Amino acid sequence: MISALELDRARIDKLFSLSDKFKRGAVKPLDRSSSVALAFFEPSTRTFSSFEMAAMKLGLSVTSMRSDKDSSMAKGETFADTVRMLSGYADLIVIRSRFDGSARFASEVSGKAIINAGDGQNEHPTQALIDMYTIKEHFGKADNLTYAIVADLRHSRTTNSLLYMLNNFRPKAVHIISPPQLKPLEQVTSRLKYECEWSDSLAGVPGDVDVLYVNRLQKERFQDEMEYNSVKGSYYIDIRVAERMPDDSIILDPLPRVDELDRAIDGTDKAKYFVQAANGVPIRQAIMYNLLSERQ
Amino acid sequence: MISALELDRARIDKLFSLSDKFKRGAVKPLDRSSSVALAFFEPSTRTFSSFEMAAMKLGLSVTSMRSDKDSSMAKGETFADTVRMLSGYADLIVIRSRFDGSARFASEVSGKAIINAGDGQNEHPTQALIDMYTIKEHFGKADNLTYAIVADLRHSRTTNSLLYMLNNFRPKAVHIISPPQLKPLEQVTSRLKYECEWSDSLAGVPGDVDVLYVNRLQKERFQDEMEYNSVKGSYYIDIRVAERMPDDSIILDPLPRVDELDRAIDGTDKAKYFVQAANGVPIRQAIMYNLLSERQ
Amino acid sequence: MISALELDRARIDKLFSLSDKFKRGAVKPLDRSSSVALAFFEPSTRTFSSFEMAAMKLGLSVTSMRSDKDSSMAKGETFADTVRMLSGYADLIVIRSRFDGSARFASEVSGKAIINAGDGQNEHPTQALIDMYTIKEHFGKADNLTYAIVADLRHSRTTNSLLYMLNNFRPKAVHIISPPQLKPLEQVTSRLKYECEWSDSLAGVPGDVDVLYVNRLQKERFQDEMEYNSVKGSYYIDIRVAERMPDDSIILDPLPRVDELDRAIDGTDKAKYFVQAANGVPIRQAIMYNLLSERQ
Repeated sequence: MISALELDRARIDKLFSLSDKFKRGAVKPLDRSSSVALAFFEPSTRTFSSFEMAAMKLGLSVTSMRSDKDSSMAKGETFADTVRMLSGYADLIVIRSRFDGSARFASEVSGKAIINAGDGQNEHPTQALIDMYTIKEHFGKADNLTYAIVADLRHSRTTNSLLYMLNNFRPKAVHIISPPQLKPLEQVTSRLKYECEWSDSLAGVPGDVDVLYVNRLQKERFQDEMEYNSVKGSYYIDIRVAERMPDDSIILDPLPRVDELDRAIDGTDKAKYFVQAANGVPIRQAIMYNLLSERQ
Repeated sequence: MISALELDRARIDKLFSLSDKFKRGAVKPLDRSSSVALAFFEPSTRTFSSFEMAAMKLGLSVTSMRSDKDSSMAKGETFADTVRMLSGYADLIVIRSRFDGSARFASEVSGKAIINAGDGQNEHPTQALIDMYTIKEHFGKADNLTYAIVADLRHSRTTNSLLYMLNNFRPKAVHIISPPQLKPLEQVTSRLKYECEWSDSLAGVPGDVDVLYVNRLQKERFQDEMEYNSVKGSYYIDIRVAERMPDDSIILDPLPRVDELDRAIDGTDKAKYFVQAANGVPIRQAIMYNLLSERQ
Repeated sequence: MISALELDRARIDKLFSLSDKFKRGAVKPLDRSSSVALAFFEPSTRTFSSFEMAAMKLGLSVTSMRSDKDSSMAKGETFADTVRMLSGYADLIVIRSRFDGSARFASEVSGKAIINAGDGQNEHPTQALIDMYTIKEHFGKADNLTYAIVADLRHSRTTNSLLYMLNNFRPKAVHIISPPQLKPLEQVTSRLKYECEWSDSLAGVPGDVDVLYVNRLQKERFQDEMEYNSVKGSYYIDIRVAERMPDDSIILDPLPRVDELDRAIDGTDKAKYFVQAANGVPIRQAIMYNLLSERQ
């Protein structure tokens, strides 16, 4: 589970159906002889906690490191050696890293299954599965919907994986709303099987939008705080934006949110971002269960 | 489980009886589908470890964060959003925070059961349950006893919860021994159903004391180190204080101890502070088990 | 499990045979009422992770602290009080500390079983068990072999415990290769039941070596970086050193490796250091299982 590009529809459907079963409590836990190492070299709350909880609910034996400081890399060990070591301890390794390509590199030096839990600005495929699963739960389908993605798409592993994932779902339309300097990279868009329409303002959210996907702009991506502050306001989703959206449409945000989303939206039916967060546990149960079953 | 003020005698007796059962190994573990998030935003050893151990012994699925740094609050996420996220992952959330009222606030934004594991200078109700349970184990009862509490009662969540807890146990007498500036707040004493007698010296420990409850004075509460050093000595419990106490009386300390308690006391029958610490596990098993059962 | 000096051959054979069984999955997990506290007051990856994984696979209830910062020692609590507290929570305490003798001291204040997971520059007995177990797996025996140990033996708890462990295995020969200032201490060699031959260069690795045991030189042990750099090169194990070794011989390294071992060796049959690392889990399962069984 390195890249959303490698997932096909059959695999995705299988994972969604497994996730449904985990939500209903309809899967027997594995036994303690199956094991996972959570190797988080970059801080994380949501991804770490939901993987940890998912592993515990699966009944797995778990060991974890939560930052560079927990690892021997502080003593000068290479990443490859750390991965090889963990491969001796666990059947499955979940890797989070600030470096693009870490998960792929880990899969090359390890004989064990690797899950990419976010590598630099590259990909975050398990998040994209959570996103699509939440969409499918709500609409009863994930095909043929209209998306608007309001985000820094240039530096976001989350939206990269989401865009790749959509290759499997024939979207009706995908609208990208971002400042010009934060459009997705050509190396990303060139891999998409559908067209994206870009706009630099919220006016680009179409009237028939089904899914409004929002992600925070990160201050550190801008030249100075003034530029950030001026841009930030233009992409702020306030309650009026939400009210203009169709009745059955939804708003997603991979969270944490900072300044991008009006808290007044929380109480509305359109707010699905906490449901989306909660889906992290069953989807990650499904992913780990599926990989461990394949290996047996 | 937000405040000791909300616990009535029936609930307390129920928890004590459950704790007895856990000590005897007479309760079947829950299954891994029940889950808890340990959300510690302030460092803690004893409280964290005993909650973690209790959760593991209960057979729960556990995820934990041990400091602000483990959480997305470092990225600017609000406390409310963090709690909502954890509410999607776990059936039960244990919260430790440096801010008064955090646990109550969490209970307002979460649909899940919240346990206050210490919030600022406000309350620490599970510690007070451990204290009373240890007392009841020793005396066979917790009613009608004479207490002397030697501590900084102005800034201590531990003694606040203990004082509230005593509302349920008709104490024979409660003596408070502290420097004048460290007496309990009026907002605390006004909620007590019994009288407290205050004294500013250890001479105020009555001859018939049953329970001497000691807590360290915290250096940072004093204007300067000189004032701290002069005061500290006057409240030091040395072996002679212990020897003057009645035969069957006991000394408690929520620990960690620093300068408040003579190590020579450790070997005596009166020293119950390590027994008290060990009771953290079964009491916290009882609390979590009880809350999870209520929810089912 | 405080010192390798206290292990006799019967105990070692018992642990090896248990470890074999754990590798085959032929031991039933213990139940959650058995518990362990992992008290790591010094950073560790390998030792921590393999103990955590071993404890999880055994089915134990686990609580852990990973650094001084997780403990109340930051608030001024003594090490003895911390150990007494943990003794109230767990049946077994695994201690890692930067201070020589911590594990022995802990065993004096605790009524529970203590495992030394590395104390300062003193000992690391569970690592030595892993080392010998890996040797025995490879050769089918651990007696009557020729060893060459290339390391800083003056400051290494790992090699101290290995040298003590070899007392039980009648080695054919033990060659020590180190700069003169990094020879083992007299207090260590005086306890050995066999002779060691010292050499200050890799030329001292004998032609019939069976086990080449390598450990990194630590920069901070040298007067300045220049001295370190000049010495380092002389003890570097490159692929040619490995090629000169007998066909069936092996190379071990407790890891992490930094500058001591040519990565070109990794692909050869002689490289057993990742197998050695992986053996950390079953050996530590065996050690904990054995101690918990004895106590019951």
